[in-house]
Amino acid sequence: MSAEVLDVTTVPAYLATRPGVPGLIDLSTATVQEVGDGNLNLVFVVRDAQGRSLVVKQSLPYVRMVGESWPLSQDRILAEGRGYVAAQALTPDLIPAFHGLDADRRVLVLEDLSEWTVWRRALDQGVIAPGAGAAVGTYAARIAFGTSVLGLPAEQVQEAAAAAANPQLCRITQDLVFTEPFVDHPQNSWDDALTGDVLALRDPALLHEVAALKYRFLTAGQALIHGDLHSGSVFVPDKRLRAAGAPAAKVFDIEFAFYGPVGFDLGTSLANHLFAHVRAQVLDRPAAFRESVADLPAQTWGAFAAEIARLWPQRADASWTDGFRDAWLREVWQDAVGFAGLEAIRRVVGLAKVSDLQSLATDERVRAARVVLTTARRWIVDRTRIAGPDGLLPAAASPVPGADARRSEPAGARA
Amino acid sequence: MSAEVLDVTTVPAYLATRPGVPGLIDLSTATVQEVGDGNLNLVFVVRDAQGRSLVVKQSLPYVRMVGESWPLSQDRILAEGRGYVAAQALTPDLIPAFHGLDADRRVLVLEDLSEWTVWRRALDQGVIAPGAGAAVGTYAARIAFGTSVLGLPAEQVQEAAAAAANPQLCRITQDLVFTEPFVDHPQNSWDDALTGDVLALRDPALLHEVAALKYRFLTAGQALIHGDLHSGSVFVPDKRLRAAGAPAAKVFDIEFAFYGPVGFDLGTSLANHLFAHVRAQVLDRPAAFRESVADLPAQTWGAFAAEIARLWPQRADASWTDGFRDAWLREVWQDAVGFAGLEAIRRVVGLAKVSDLQSLATDERVRAARVVLTTARRWIVDRTRIAGPDGLLPAAASPVPGADARRSEPAGARA
Repeated sequence: MSAEVLDVTTVPAYLATRPGVPGLIDLSTATVQEVGDGNLNLVFVVRDAQGRSLVVKQSLPYVRMVGESWPLSQDRILAEGRGYVAAQALTPDLIPAFHGLDADRRVLVLEDLSEWTVWRRALDQGVIAPGAGAAVGTYAARIAFGTSVLGLPAEQVQEAAAAAANPQLCRITQDLVFTEPFVDHPQNSWDDALTGDVLALRDPALLHEVAALKYRFLTAGQALIHGDLHSGSVFVPDKRLRAAGAPAAKVFDIEFAFYGPVGFDLGTSLANHLFAHVRAQVLDRPAAFRESVADLPAQTWGAFAAEIARLWPQRADASWTDGFRDAWLREVWQDAVGFAGLEAIRRVVGLAKVSDLQSLATDERVRAARVVLTTARRWIVDRTRIAGPDGLLPAAASPVPGADARRSEPAGARA
Repeated sequence: MSAEVLDVTTVPAYLATRPGVPGLIDLSTATVQEVGDGNLNLVFVVRDAQGRSLVVKQSLPYVRMVGESWPLSQDRILAEGRGYVAAQALTPDLIPAFHGLDADRRVLVLEDLSEWTVWRRALDQGVIAPGAGAAVGTYAARIAFGTSVLGLPAEQVQEAAAAAANPQLCRITQDLVFTEPFVDHPQNSWDDALTGDVLALRDPALLHEVAALKYRFLTAGQALIHGDLHSGSVFVPDKRLRAAGAPAAKVFDIEFAFYGPVGFDLGTSLANHLFAHVRAQVLDRPAAFRESVADLPAQTWGAFAAEIARLWPQRADASWTDGFRDAWLREVWQDAVGFAGLEAIRRVVGLAKVSDLQSLATDERVRAARVVLTTARRWIVDRTRIAGPDGLLPAAASPVPGADARRSEPAGARA
């Protein structure tokens, strides 16, 4: 089913029909701007004369980056709506305020976070976002606990999991993350100098583990995961917003949500810590920034584990013993490390790149990408032997001399 | 929703309305007998004057063994219908011929297997059913492969899994297998002499592993498993039927079907091998029977692995490497051993007993049950260290002297 596509001229009249929305904004003075930079959606910012604003998100019936040649059901906005409904119940502080889903028109209305920064952009620019890693870990823990048999009766989880099936978006992840980077595929691309590194990934020992993680992605229906929880799916506040009491991060873009392995969201986060870390080293960012990035895995995982421990007394089943919790955390961690390796590889080799690496000069990017690929292989193959976030990130991605003018201490001071 | 309950007087008129059924049997001369001995359903055998027959199964709106105090949706017959539809497509030789589901009346029409024997009864009586263990392994492999991402595109599996959600029946398994045997519960019962053994199960080391297996049962949506694949869910043919070309077994009672871990069905099978094995030893059955029972785990697992290998070239995704297959088989085996331990315990401690043990004299039953509980604990706690079916069953459950008149060789000849 295809719903009528909104444009900047039709958004105000449309919003006038949405329950509750006319009370949030003065539609008679509203101006509308289309700001979508994603692949799958239209995103409008609507502002009134009093400075109030809203975001309107409508799913397109195709993948925007590729165009109408890749049709995609607009139903994915229903998946995103389910994600926001769950997050609103479990951790409303860590998502944009949610003003409802119009299932017929495939439209979500959300808080406007234009004054916030997409976390990846902050990381790219060397700006520290205090507490953002921990906030993402807390978010992941609340969703993992509150949508799963840890926090709910099993019947309720099984019904929710059935309703949350999201096969089209899972297929995108399956292809882009788990399949295409390891075969010849026209959507792949990389710097020529990396060809040997990329082809070296196709060895049986690695491919067996990739298959095991793909199978786990497709069969471990543990919780309503985000499904694409990278630094481009997180908004961070600036100093002014923080001073006004803003939380350290807000998670958005939940359209890949489905019942999958809890470790997947943590894994995409860890991979994006790696990109930021390698970039910061290659650009020789100031020590405070480099250290804040190097600490992200420990921050994120620490917050996740702490939040699970905090929620544990509310568990839905006395069978979930503390010993089981510890074993469960170990398994989630191992899954996360493995999935992080997959996410790391696909962002170098596959269709969807990351600005952390793409915006580097070629020589720097090649060197950074080599570190990423080497680390990713280690994560995938050794995931059951990596006990925790200590030592997860590579220590040595030597800076390019003079690559960043802000360099203020001897090279290798942190190695 | 509750559908009108059939009785012996209304079955013929009802069958006259079912498409295709009047061609299978002469309803004008039909006689009807109610033969259900299960807990959840009415089962009618309908025979005509020419000796043709059919089975009609209708789900009751409560658990029959407990009575109307335990209401249960009749929707479970839809789960059973899904199980038969899948099995009919993938392994029609190893189920009763399936003549359709009436979703409105909650009725299945099936081949009448009255001339066959429920496998548990044959095992109880010391009768060998050649090839039955292997047939169950083959059945489990075909379903595991053909309903999962091994054999189907992921989208199709995700849609099928959502449609196959069966929360009410999963709750029964969750409670009876994974919860009640390990707590004080009015549905539990055991011989007084076993109290120490039963209470000793409630130690943290075991309970952590029980929790891990329960979580796996609830979250590992790998394939459309049977969900209750014990020796009471399998018909075996006698010599005459085998001579006429009957398969070695037919699987039935699929109402617990849902997308769960592949190892669960194999585990319930292995546990029931243990019951038969311990009974055969305690009763000192003839060596040929004891050896055939002792070989059941190897037969079942060997047939499962062989059938997976045979189907492997038809896998739906080139990502599933041979190395992944081997790792997958190891994981399925470990799951099976763990789930077998759970099934073994619940049949001694929980609500639903097995005739293998219940029909023994008290002293024999107590000794057999001790062996079962000891073995079950080993299976659960050591499952990752048990490499295969060799040595899975306990070697020594010493016979009761003179307990079986057919004893024909020195005690301990097989020890």
